[in-house]
Amino acid sequence: MTNIAVVGATGAVGQTTLKILEERKFPVARLRAFASARSAGKTVTFAGEQIRVEPLGPGVFEGTDVAFFSAGSAQAREYAPQAVKAGAVVVDKSSAFRMDPDVPLVVPEINAHALRDHRGIVSCPNCTTIVTVMPLKPLHDAGRLRRVVATSFQAVSGAGVDGIEELRRQTLAWARGEALVPEKFPHQIAFNVIPHIDQFAEDGYTGEEKKLVNEVRKILELPDLAISPTTVRVPVFTAHSVAVNAETERKIAREQARDIFAAFPGLRVWDAPGEARYPTPVMVEGQDDCFVGRVREDPSRANALNFWVVGDQLRKGAALNGIQVAELLIR
Amino acid sequence: MTNIAVVGATGAVGQTTLKILEERKFPVARLRAFASARSAGKTVTFAGEQIRVEPLGPGVFEGTDVAFFSAGSAQAREYAPQAVKAGAVVVDKSSAFRMDPDVPLVVPEINAHALRDHRGIVSCPNCTTIVTVMPLKPLHDAGRLRRVVATSFQAVSGAGVDGIEELRRQTLAWARGEALVPEKFPHQIAFNVIPHIDQFAEDGYTGEEKKLVNEVRKILELPDLAISPTTVRVPVFTAHSVAVNAETERKIAREQARDIFAAFPGLRVWDAPGEARYPTPVMVEGQDDCFVGRVREDPSRANALNFWVVGDQLRKGAALNGIQVAELLIR
Repeated sequence: MTNIAVVGATGAVGQTTLKILEERKFPVARLRAFASARSAGKTVTFAGEQIRVEPLGPGVFEGTDVAFFSAGSAQAREYAPQAVKAGAVVVDKSSAFRMDPDVPLVVPEINAHALRDHRGIVSCPNCTTIVTVMPLKPLHDAGRLRRVVATSFQAVSGAGVDGIEELRRQTLAWARGEALVPEKFPHQIAFNVIPHIDQFAEDGYTGEEKKLVNEVRKILELPDLAISPTTVRVPVFTAHSVAVNAETERKIAREQARDIFAAFPGLRVWDAPGEARYPTPVMVEGQDDCFVGRVREDPSRANALNFWVVGDQLRKGAALNGIQVAELLIR
Repeated sequence: MTNIAVVGATGAVGQTTLKILEERKFPVARLRAFASARSAGKTVTFAGEQIRVEPLGPGVFEGTDVAFFSAGSAQAREYAPQAVKAGAVVVDKSSAFRMDPDVPLVVPEINAHALRDHRGIVSCPNCTTIVTVMPLKPLHDAGRLRRVVATSFQAVSGAGVDGIEELRRQTLAWARGEALVPEKFPHQIAFNVIPHIDQFAEDGYTGEEKKLVNEVRKILELPDLAISPTTVRVPVFTAHSVAVNAETERKIAREQARDIFAAFPGLRVWDAPGEARYPTPVMVEGQDDCFVGRVREDPSRANALNFWVVGDQLRKGAALNGIQVAELLIR
C-alpha cells in the first residue's frame, strides 16, 4: 500500500487523477491533496471520502511514497525536489523537467525501460505529445520513421479548468445573444479555432509545437527525427485529435498499418469509413485508449501514411499516463 | 448592364451572392432568383427589393446574360446546359463540371486566362481549394512547388444553411442541457471535430480531399503536383482555415514568403506572433481577402514552409469568387 500525494488536486488533471486512482483500485494507504494557497481548504472527493485540500509548504511530503504533480512548472520546480528529498517519487505532469537529461520522460507503453534510471522524478509528456507518439512508436518499430508532419486539434481542457470554463461561458453568452469575451485564451474560442498554444519563439513556432518535437524525439530516442508541427486550439471540451502524415524508410501498406496500430497496447483502431466509423473527440472522451482512424497511404510520397489519432487529454494525455507510471514504479 | 439569374438563391451561397452583387455594385439590369420547388414562392432581398423566388423549369433562362449557380451538382448538370443554350454564361459553384477538361476552373487572381476558352460554363473551385490555392500560387511562382501537406479546419457553412442550422441547434440544445442529435453531419458537430466531409472512396480519402488535390492541380496547371490532404469539419460558422506545409524547389525564407503573400492580390498577411496576431475564422468572417499567418520555415526539411491560411467560406470560398469571374466575363 502506498502513501499518495496529489499536488494540484483541484485542477482538471488533479480531479481526473483522483478518479482514475479509484477506478484502477490503485493500492492507496493514505491520500493527501495539495493545491495552491488559493484553493487550500476546499475539499476533493476520493473513494467516497471528502479530503481537505492542504497548502504546499515545508515538510508536507514526509511519509509520501508517490507524489503526482499536476501543478504549474514553477510549483514543480519548487516542490518536486522537496518531495524527492522526503523520500517520495514524483510523477510530474508539468514541463519543468521533461527535457532534463537526468529525468526520464515516460509513456509506459513505449519506454517503460527509461524508468530504471530515475533519480526521484519521472516526467510525463505534454498531452499532445502522448496522443501523437502512441501511434508513431509501432510505426517506427515496423518501418523506421523518417519524417512526421503533425497538425493538432486540441481541446480546451488542455488549458485546465479555466479553459473548460471559458468555452462554456462564451458558448452560454452566445446562446443569450451576449458578447463573447476572451480571458484565458488569446482570442474567442467558442465557434473559432486558434493556431496559438503557449508562447511564440523567435522562429515563429509556439512552445506547444516545440514540446511536441522535442518530447517525441526524447521518448522515441530519435534525437534527430524530422517533425513539422502545427498546434491549434479548437472548441472541444476534453479530447485532442491529431492529423498525422508519417513517412517511413520501409513501406507500410494501409492494412498493415491498421494491424500494427491495433496490436499496440493502449491503441485501438476505429477505421471503417464506409460506416462513418473513425474517432472523434466526443466519442473518445472518457476512454483510456487512444484511437486511430482514417488510415490512408499518401499518394504524394512513397512510404508515407496519413492517419488521425484521438485521445482523452485528461486521461491518457495526462492523469492516466501518470498513474500508469506509478503502477510500474510500485511494482 | 446585365441580366442576372441566381440559382439556389435561398441557400447560404445564394444569399451571399445577392449581398455581394449589391456591395460591389455589379451592373445588374434585371435579377431573377431561382431555387428548388420547395423554396419557390419565398422571397429574397436584393438592393432593397423583395424578389420572388421562381422554380426552375423549361425556358426560364431566356434573356439571361449571367447565371450564378449555387445549387447542387444534379441541378447544375440538368439546368446549366439549358442556360448556356439560352445564351447565358453559367458561373457554377457545384462540383459538376470542375474536372471537365472543356470547362475552365477559375480563381480570378490565379488563372483568369483560362476564361478565354470557356464554352458557356465556368466552374468555381471547392471552398477549401480556393482558400488553400490562394497562397500556393505565389509560392509556386517564387519557388516551384514540390509537395503540399494540407490539413483543413472547415466551417459548417460549407454544408449550407442546414450545416449552419445544425451547429446552432446542437449548441442551443447543449445550453438547455438537452441531447445533441446529429442530422446533417454524420456525428455531433457542436464541441466536436469530424474528419469526414463528402463520401469516402476505396483508398480512404474523402471526396472533399480528392477535390482539393484535383482542383489545385487543375488551377495551378500542375497535373502531377504532390498533395497530401486531410479535411476536417470544425464547429465554426463561416470561415475555413487550412494548415499548410509546402515544399518548394528553391528555398523561400520566412520574411520572403511573407512579402510574396502580401504582394499577391486577394491575400493579406497577419503575422505578428508577438502580438498574438494571426488570422482566426471569427476575425476573417465577412472579409473578402484570404489571410495568411504563422509563416515558419520547416525545421524538418530544407525548402519547406509551414503557414496558416483563413478565408470566408461563403465569400472568397464561394460567392465572391463567382462574382469576380462574372466581372471579368462582362468586361
